[in-house]
Amino acid sequence: MKKYWNYVQSVKEKSPLVHNITNYVVMNNTANALLAAGASPVMAHAVEEVADMVKIAGSLVINIGTLSENWIKAMKIAIKQANSMGKPVVIDPVGAGATPFRNSTLSDLLQTCKFTVIRGNASEIKALFAADIKTKGVDSTDSTESAYEAAGFLNKKYGSIICVSGDPDIIISENKVARVKNGHPMMAKVTGMGCISTALIGAFMAVVEDKFDAVGAAMALMGVTGELALEKSSGPASLQANFIDKLFNITEEEFLKKVNVTFE
Amino acid sequence: MKKYWNYVQSVKEKSPLVHNITNYVVMNNTANALLAAGASPVMAHAVEEVADMVKIAGSLVINIGTLSENWIKAMKIAIKQANSMGKPVVIDPVGAGATPFRNSTLSDLLQTCKFTVIRGNASEIKALFAADIKTKGVDSTDSTESAYEAAGFLNKKYGSIICVSGDPDIIISENKVARVKNGHPMMAKVTGMGCISTALIGAFMAVVEDKFDAVGAAMALMGVTGELALEKSSGPASLQANFIDKLFNITEEEFLKKVNVTFE
Amino acid sequence: MKKYWNYVQSVKEKSPLVHNITNYVVMNNTANALLAAGASPVMAHAVEEVADMVKIAGSLVINIGTLSENWIKAMKIAIKQANSMGKPVVIDPVGAGATPFRNSTLSDLLQTCKFTVIRGNASEIKALFAADIKTKGVDSTDSTESAYEAAGFLNKKYGSIICVSGDPDIIISENKVARVKNGHPMMAKVTGMGCISTALIGAFMAVVEDKFDAVGAAMALMGVTGELALEKSSGPASLQANFIDKLFNITEEEFLKKVNVTFE
Repeated sequence: MKKYWNYVQSVKEKSPLVHNITNYVVMNNTANALLAAGASPVMAHAVEEVADMVKIAGSLVINIGTLSENWIKAMKIAIKQANSMGKPVVIDPVGAGATPFRNSTLSDLLQTCKFTVIRGNASEIKALFAADIKTKGVDSTDSTESAYEAAGFLNKKYGSIICVSGDPDIIISENKVARVKNGHPMMAKVTGMGCISTALIGAFMAVVEDKFDAVGAAMALMGVTGELALEKSSGPASLQANFIDKLFNITEEEFLKKVNVTFE
Repeated sequence: MKKYWNYVQSVKEKSPLVHNITNYVVMNNTANALLAAGASPVMAHAVEEVADMVKIAGSLVINIGTLSENWIKAMKIAIKQANSMGKPVVIDPVGAGATPFRNSTLSDLLQTCKFTVIRGNASEIKALFAADIKTKGVDSTDSTESAYEAAGFLNKKYGSIICVSGDPDIIISENKVARVKNGHPMMAKVTGMGCISTALIGAFMAVVEDKFDAVGAAMALMGVTGELALEKSSGPASLQANFIDKLFNITEEEFLKKVNVTFE
Repeated sequence: MKKYWNYVQSVKEKSPLVHNITNYVVMNNTANALLAAGASPVMAHAVEEVADMVKIAGSLVINIGTLSENWIKAMKIAIKQANSMGKPVVIDPVGAGATPFRNSTLSDLLQTCKFTVIRGNASEIKALFAADIKTKGVDSTDSTESAYEAAGFLNKKYGSIICVSGDPDIIISENKVARVKNGHPMMAKVTGMGCISTALIGAFMAVVEDKFDAVGAAMALMGVTGELALEKSSGPASLQANFIDKLFNITEEEFLKKVNVTFE
């Protein structure tokens, strides 16, 4: 896991510009998490500028949490620009399965664009697999193993690395599977923790050649940081703050002592 | 007040999905407050999906803080869907009286839609009553008793339960009045505390049959939690965080010791 | 510097209504910072109401962080209303230089509207001066002295007071220059600290006659508060919270002990 730590260091040293087209709820914390991890966040959604922003960014993060027609247009322009330049793109299918609008938007995006990584919770990943599965809002209590089959299917169909976040995080590429056994259920009580993990995947992909490892390192950093932050927290808000603080000052020793990843 | 505590527990046990069409300023804290109280928040505003989101939600929260034309369209669609299904709807008339646009929007919404609850501060409630009263922004220093008459008028005219938040919170239904004498003026120094109380009303209404009691329990939880959070706070930002933490881990003993509600 | 402290007190006593048309990322913290400093924030962006909001506000804050076509329309309406009434306007050219859309929008706004103050980091101020300088996102590692010439040029061309924030903050008017040597690099690890300083400039301009001093006092309060907050912080998120808390309860003694401003 020394390799993962080296990637954590790479983000801090190279400070990649991460372009986020994300939801209103999590923008502040996402920007702060990226800054704390050493990346340089930019949020921009105007159809007039997203292609130009992608040109100077190291990666693109798409999050459909608070979707609307104009934002979808901007997302498409941005993704196509990133695809044409070979820049990594990660999508967070927030609330997949909750409404036909989300499902059709996701279906359209998946058909017409190329995503390096798709990261969702178990119910979102299963909803992408079977559009008739209904999710309850944007949180998920399904086990991640229950989405294993769906993740494999999506990986084959779209060629994207699939990351099912939860306990454990399962990361599936064409011929590799990683399980990150870090994190804590309390993290689900903070809004936008999943969105932050998606943004961190964006940051790691911008500086790490092997995208499967980039996702693993990002999720491991999320989980370990969450565990460390929880030790000092008395509830979700202090966890949210301590998480950002710890993301900023986590040490190699702290990381290596807790990180727990298995591969198959 | 054991009854109110039981309602606090109901929210945690049933974890209702609360659909928020709310303002940009408070989305993150509103989502975190709902999560901390045990509810499941979703924020969605696209005209293409709000009706579908209402279908799976337990209640609808409308907040006009950062209004625009498209959001009004979405609000109307969502409210009409909720009305048609008999689902509870609460509106927060943020900044009522500040501009003709807000006044005409509110007037239109009140004429054409049905709200289970209207929750505002004294100046907002009075502005709904008399459109010529000018408010100063979105905070209020007026006493809540000064809005008593206006609240009674609005209750009669629209059939909504009216909640005037402040010191004390006054809750008026057709034949009942409750006064919640909890909370602290320092809470007004945190942006969006009023919006959080509106969202909590949404959560309680989704699981409590008696809507008058649902409002009372939500406001009592706000006030008591604020008082408890303040004990550990050194300013508005720590109050904001401690409030969410305490919402998450408040005990029956803490609640019952402080809660102070009178009825007439 | 007793004069600056008097201005800090004026904001608390007069509690000016500050109208913000700002970016989604920083709205919550901007509102909380304004409240903590004693001002009364309002966020409103609808073309239907911004002119009316300006009419009741003490100043207008324009921030182009998450720009789009409709918001530009609203900004123009609001600025023209403020200009026609002689109300102070401050603009934060977030990400100037990053995309042609930002550059052309800023160019258009600067040509057609009047700004009392322009506040940006060194790379943004230089980008306004020479549109061909490319910035990397919205953060800046350039020294502020490197933007001195650009700031002087912009002051002459547009008649605005120019504030280049960084180490030190440089404030340039027609015949005065102030350097605020407070603050800490760690503040750049919190998203929106620059946006908060712009909003505070708005609050101070609303109550202080001498606009050059208003900017100086606002930046001094930012810097001193940041230094004081850092003493208790273990990372960017606790700094963000402690900053708001300290803004609320900073004492004259604390302020005068640390404030460090030179004039030429």
